[in-house]
Formats: sequence, C-alpha cells, structure tokens
Amino acid sequence: MADQKKLVAEITSMDEDFTQWYTDVCTKAELIAYSHIKGFMVIKPAGYALWEAIQSHLDARFKATGVQNVYMPLLIPESLLRKEGELVNGFAPEVAWVTAGGEEELTERLCVRPTSETLFSDFYKDDVHSYRDLPRLYNQWCSVVRWEKETRPFLRSREFLWQEGHTIHATKEEAEERTLQMLDVYADFLAEDMAIPTVKGRKTDKEKFAGAESTYTIEALMHDGRALQSGTSHFFGQKFAEAYDITFTDKDNKLKYVWQTSWGMTTRVIGAMIMVHGDNRGLVIPPKIAPVQVCIIPIQQRKAGVLDKAYEMADILKGFRVKVDDTDKSPGFKYAEQEMRGIPLRVEIGPRDLEKNSCVIVRRDTSEKIECDIDRLADKVAELLPRIQQDMYDRALAHMQAHTYQAEDTETFKKTFEEKTGFVKAMWCGSRECEEKIKELYGVTSRCIPYEQEKIADTCVCCGRPATKMVYWGKAY
Amino acid sequence: MADQKKLVAEITSMDEDFTQWYTDVCTKAELIAYSHIKGFMVIKPAGYALWEAIQSHLDARFKATGVQNVYMPLLIPESLLRKEGELVNGFAPEVAWVTAGGEEELTERLCVRPTSETLFSDFYKDDVHSYRDLPRLYNQWCSVVRWEKETRPFLRSREFLWQEGHTIHATKEEAEERTLQMLDVYADFLAEDMAIPTVKGRKTDKEKFAGAESTYTIEALMHDGRALQSGTSHFFGQKFAEAYDITFTDKDNKLKYVWQTSWGMTTRVIGAMIMVHGDNRGLVIPPKIAPVQVCIIPIQQRKAGVLDKAYEMADILKGFRVKVDDTDKSPGFKYAEQEMRGIPLRVEIGPRDLEKNSCVIVRRDTSEKIECDIDRLADKVAELLPRIQQDMYDRALAHMQAHTYQAEDTETFKKTFEEKTGFVKAMWCGSRECEEKIKELYGVTSRCIPYEQEKIADTCVCCGRPATKMVYWGKAY
Repeated sequence: MADQKKLVAEITSMDEDFTQWYTDVCTKAELIAYSHIKGFMVIKPAGYALWEAIQSHLDARFKATGVQNVYMPLLIPESLLRKEGELVNGFAPEVAWVTAGGEEELTERLCVRPTSETLFSDFYKDDVHSYRDLPRLYNQWCSVVRWEKETRPFLRSREFLWQEGHTIHATKEEAEERTLQMLDVYADFLAEDMAIPTVKGRKTDKEKFAGAESTYTIEALMHDGRALQSGTSHFFGQKFAEAYDITFTDKDNKLKYVWQTSWGMTTRVIGAMIMVHGDNRGLVIPPKIAPVQVCIIPIQQRKAGVLDKAYEMADILKGFRVKVDDTDKSPGFKYAEQEMRGIPLRVEIGPRDLEKNSCVIVRRDTSEKIECDIDRLADKVAELLPRIQQDMYDRALAHMQAHTYQAEDTETFKKTFEEKTGFVKAMWCGSRECEEKIKELYGVTSRCIPYEQEKIADTCVCCGRPATKMVYWGKAY
Repeated sequence: MADQKKLVAEITSMDEDFTQWYTDVCTKAELIAYSHIKGFMVIKPAGYALWEAIQSHLDARFKATGVQNVYMPLLIPESLLRKEGELVNGFAPEVAWVTAGGEEELTERLCVRPTSETLFSDFYKDDVHSYRDLPRLYNQWCSVVRWEKETRPFLRSREFLWQEGHTIHATKEEAEERTLQMLDVYADFLAEDMAIPTVKGRKTDKEKFAGAESTYTIEALMHDGRALQSGTSHFFGQKFAEAYDITFTDKDNKLKYVWQTSWGMTTRVIGAMIMVHGDNRGLVIPPKIAPVQVCIIPIQQRKAGVLDKAYEMADILKGFRVKVDDTDKSPGFKYAEQEMRGIPLRVEIGPRDLEKNSCVIVRRDTSEKIECDIDRLADKVAELLPRIQQDMYDRALAHMQAHTYQAEDTETFKKTFEEKTGFVKAMWCGSRECEEKIKELYGVTSRCIPYEQEKIADTCVCCGRPATKMVYWGKAY
C-alpha cells in the first residue's frame, strides 16, 4: 500500500485548499498539461476522451431536435465584427488579432473567432430568402479564443473547445421557444448524463451576453459552494438581423427580418464534473460518460489462472467499456490510479477469489465493496452502473439544496454570505445599481432569475424598495 | 420535367470545363459557401455531414490501432516554431501571425498552427521519461491555417479541417512500421469506405514534407486524369527529438532520443470523392459514407395513401439512413436534387405503384431502374448498397488503370504527356535536377516511387543515365 499512499499524498485535500485540489486533479488524473502560452492547455487523452463522450451525448440531443452541424471560418475580418456594436464592445478587449499572412502584412486585421454570431449572420444574409428557408438550425463544434487575464484549466482559458448553435426563425415566438428548448437540452444533458443538477433561469441585463436581448442560463453549485455558469442560451430578437441585413420574404409576401438565437456549452462542464463529483482521491466520473466504466485489477497476477480469468471477465463484460490493468505495477498503485482517474467500478480478482469463482467489486463513489459470483458479474455491473449514476445525481442535488439559503432582509443576506458559501435566494428590485452594490459589498453576483419564483419578501434585499423578482446570488467561477 | 432540366442546366458539363464543373458541384450540391476571406470557406450541412462520416470511419480505424485523441493549442510561439530549421523554412512563408491579444501588443508573435509537430514535440519532451512511456500514439482533429496563394474549395484552402497523428517510439523499426501502417489505414479507408483506389509509394526528397526523413503518400487519379495526393505519412527519424530534446531512458538504462512519425488526412478527400465519382448530374456518394443512403420520393403525393406508404417504406428501411422528400416541390425537381446531392438510391412511389404494392428503385451511379415489390424492399436495398459501393470502386479502378501509361524513353514520355492526362510510369535516375527539368518541360511532378516497382527500362527518362527506380509522374491538384 506504500505506492498507493504516495500517489494519493500528491493531491492536496479539498478541505484544505480547494483551488489547489482542483489543479492537482486536473494534472494528476492526466486530463491536461500546461502549454508555453498562458491560458492555452494541452488536453491529454483522459481529458479528451471525456470531451468526446460529452460531444457524442450532446450532439445526439441536438440532432434529435433537428439541428445540423456546419463549420464557419476561424478568422473574422475586423469590419465584419464591428457591424454589431454591443457585441464588439463586449469582445474587442479580449480577441486575438492576426495581422500578417505569410510574409505580407494584411490590409485588414482578422480576429480569431471569440464566438461566431457575426459569421453566421453574414452567412445567413445570403443563404436565406424565403420563409421556406426557415428555420435554419445550425451548430458548430470548434475552438474559440478570448484573451482572458486570469486563467484556470477548463474554467477559464484563452482557448477553449465548445459548440455554438446559431438559429434563425420566421417568428419571435419560434425563436423564443428554441432559446428555451436548448436550455432544457443542456439542463437535461447535465442532469441525466453528467449527474449534475442545475438551476434554470434568466440572466439580469447586467450579466447577459453582449448583444443579446435575453440570456438564459443553467447554474450549477460546486462542492465548495461556488456557482458555475454551465450553459447559456441567448435570444437576440432582430438585433443581428438588422445589423447584418438578414431578411426573408414571408408568406404574406412582405420582407421581414429574421429572429435569432445562439447557445453554447464548453469544456468548462469538465470543470463542473470535477468540482461537483470529485473527492480527495481524485476524479469521480458518472458512468454514462465515463470513457472506461469498469477497471479489472488482477491481484498476484503472475499466479496461474489470474490473468486469464481477468481477460475472461473483460469478455463477460464486453457490453460495457472495460479495461484490464495488466501492467506490472502493484495492485495498490493500480487501485490509487483507478480512483484518481474516477473509473466508476473496480473489479478485483486474485488467487483466493479464483477458488471461489468470485470477485470483489468496489464502487468509486462510495467505496462500497461487493463480493460477486463471476457468473453474476455482468448482471451486477448492469445493475450497479445506473445506480451509481442516480446516487451521484441525488448526492449532488442534496448538496445543492443544503447549500441554498434564503435571505428575507439585508441583515440575513449579509450574514449568510459572511458565514456560508452557496446560493442565496433573495428579492431584487430590478435595478443595476443594487446589483453593483451587492457585488461591491459582498463579492457576489446575480446568478439568475430562476424560472421557479418564490415570494420571499416584499422588498429588495439591497435598497428596500418594492421587489417582485427573486434572484439566486452567489460567488461564481 | 422542366424543373429538373433547369436545375441540371446550372452545372457546367465536366467534359467542357472540369474546373467549373467542380466548383458548380461544390456550391450547387450545397457542400460549401465562400466566405469574405479568400481561401476560407463555410462548410454547409451537406458538406459537414460528409466530413462527420469520414471522421467517424477514420477515427474508428485509428483507435483500432491503439491511437488516442488529444488536443493541442491553436497558437505556436515563434521561438518554438523556429527550433527545427527545415520545418520553419517549409512553413514560415505561409503562416498567419497573431501579434495582439486584446488591447496589448504581444511580446512574441504567435502563429496559427499550420501543423503541430512543434507542439507535440514540445509536449512529449516533458511527458516521456522511460521506455515504459512509449510508444505514444496521439492524434488530433482540428483546423489548420496555411496562407496559400491559389485556393479552391476542399483542394487548397487557407483554412482546412484535418486530423494529424503524431507518434513517438523507442526504436527506429517501430516508428517505420507505424509510418507504413498508417499509410495502409488511409489506403484501406479510401478503398473500402470512399471507393477510391490509390497508388501507394514514397515521395522523392524534393516532394517530401519539410523536416521529414521520408514521406509516404497515397495518390488518387481524378476523373480528368490529374493526380491528387490524398493522405501522407511521415517518418521523422530523430530530427525533432534532437531539436526539441525528447529523450527517454531505455531498458539498457541509457538516455536515447525517440523516433517519431506524423500522418494526416484532410477535407481534401471530399474533393477526391467529388472528382472521382461525380458526373454531369452532380455528386455521387459511396453508400458507406453517404449521410443519406436512400431518398424516398412520393409521386402525386396528395393522392390518398401515397404519403402514408412513403412513410411506411421509410419505416421498413429504418436499418438504413433514409429520408422521405415530402416537400411541395415537383417530383422532377426532387429527382434532380437527389441526384445533385449524390444520394445512392432513389425510391419512387406513386398511385400506380400503390395498386401493385411495388415501387421503383433508381441507382444514382448507373441510373438503372429496378421495379421492386414493397415486401422485398429492405432486402433489395441491403443487396444494392454494397453492390453500388463495389461497382463504384471497380469503375474508379478501371479508370485509373486506363489512364496509367508507361514510357520507356524520353520521346514516349513527352508524347504521352502531350496527348494524355494520367499517371505515367517511367524510370528515374534519382537526381533532383531531372525532376526539376521534367517539371519545367512537361509541367508534371513525381507523384511517388510506388511500392510495386517494375523495370520499364534501364535508363532515366530524362537524362539517360542508369536508373533503378520507377516513378509515377503526373499533373497534380
């Protein structure tokens, strides 16, 4: 067990220093490596396999709603970017500029896409003529660059991978419906595939996306009580349509502007998964998206029959994603590694088990050990994986609920944020001044105006004026 | 049929103007749209669905050989790029430079990756210590930028999508084996999935990749007799290992440099597919990678029972990728559209067919019409799709063979290229001067030194000196 202890000792305890624990997990579980450019990371095989799983689940959900994938150019001419004022103001301070191609200076600067509303709008302008061409439900998987000052793996980086959906519609109602539909897709994906509960709501004007008429968000709560914006869906109204002249001839033969949406989810959800499910032994990956679901670890693997039995068991489990760790490391080291990597189930098989034709299954999430007859192994794994998935969700939900507070008045609001970290539900008058003051005083931001409203009090927690909206407040990543 | 004629009339005949025909197919089959930046294209849903199919087939083939996917940064610091001299000299004239991030000038220019040997090398340097860490078999799917002067959709663009595999090994033999193995993967993929035959061979030193010790290629022959380099695999020896200091402790406890390979395939293979299989009615997509394999077109769809039967047939065919074209266009227009889009099978169903409980199946590749009892539809489609796949390959192979010539002497060589376009097999002395002279005189390049050597003559087709190598020459895209 010396090896195991050594490996485990390398991670900082999450209770001691959550930030360092997070970084340790990212590197020790071999998800990423740092590159030579600040904020640009190398996503290693274990990290990229997670992204592939996320992509495949999300992509299937998108396609089920009629979305088609496309690819837009990496670079955006400055003049094109500048057509929509708010978007430019939002992004200009943080884009990377290409100024030379080959050995020649460019006559116009090109920015590396920070997001592609401008490109999609410019494309739709020529692609759409009639109501028959609508809706257009396009999405792309790509990387984007935003020159952030502070960076952390997955959570905030200068380059990140994401998908960005961009749709246009003939009517306002249809576009609004699509905006909410895609937020539901995100929330369902996080709940069902990633075992992460979220709160659905609308962003305040202060927090909404540059250029959007309204932004909807799902907010998740991390283990340390801080919030993570995990997916957003934007309703643009006709702003981009007017700026980029995207018109169509409607059924009534009149020329009209289209109604537009966009929605995105990023590699950030890997960060959410780490911080919602991880523990002091490393990652805990929900079975549905785990690249490896079962790791079979032979004990005393040189003893006759052990390795053969391990391979035979892998064969029995071929309906699952299984690997046999037959390297020459010690079992203890292998256990620690499997735990660090968050593989949902470990199956131990040694000479003593062989005699009994049984093995020991260990759950990564609870450490529960289950002795299992090898003849029943496939059934047991088929039963355990969905149970783990459900238990992980339930625990995350219980944690979120236990860390969601409410404050009827200023005093309680202040006290709660002094003593706790989590969501605080409180009433708000709707003014940006109060939002700014709350941020200044308590270091928290409005996370969202949740769909599920409750009337906690009559007055704004900040100014005391009448209030009708309940807001989730919190410290965010 | 007026509609159909109109749509078809929009494509230039391939015999009249092959270049214009190609461009017409790219745009009329809705594969791409041009963007505002020269050489950057929008890949539309029909084009991107092809790329997704190609990715999924290739990726499965890679993974079956143990390859893992990763993601490296988009940007490369100039100093890192400059570490390996030949690579820089090869790429420096054609990279895009980022010089500002947000509102600040960067202290060092960053180039948008034209390829990622430098990034992988720099990463491997810190990631690999012992022979136990080897081999590393990594691949990434991404976009790259090369500031090309002349551009054409899919064939040569300033940004393109590709995969780049980068592996490192403990021994020279293993790296060489991997180089050839991946060339085989490419050739098998093109032959079996894309129905495109190729010639496998090694590039001459003049034509090899900047920085490679040797480059292997698969060369395909387009309908117009011009060659297209369709995939390449490079053996780097220890060049990058030395430049980037990638060492490992071997079993004998000595510090050694690793041996390295890289290999890539791009969206260019979509261009190959268009130019190998397309005809004057548009695209012809091989069934294995066709996003839609069967298009059911109802005739007089407002007549009772027609549309219901069409949906019922789609249900019968649910094991295939099927769509019902139930739009309000005329059948003739729908036929033309299905043909333009290259969907392998069309199934026509009208009121008269209903009475007989039969339908008409039309092969896109041969226009053959087959009357089929609806009860036998699924069997018939299951039989036709692989037959089309095989026939498409056989025709492409016959075309390549019919356009492969050989030249024993200078006179025949000259005459062949004056009169024909295709591959010309001829002997070569091995000197770069002869290659350059041949290019100057006949406008052709050495495509490869094929694996399958024949002794056509004793002397070089250019200088008359003794020759031992047979080379495929041709005009290339």
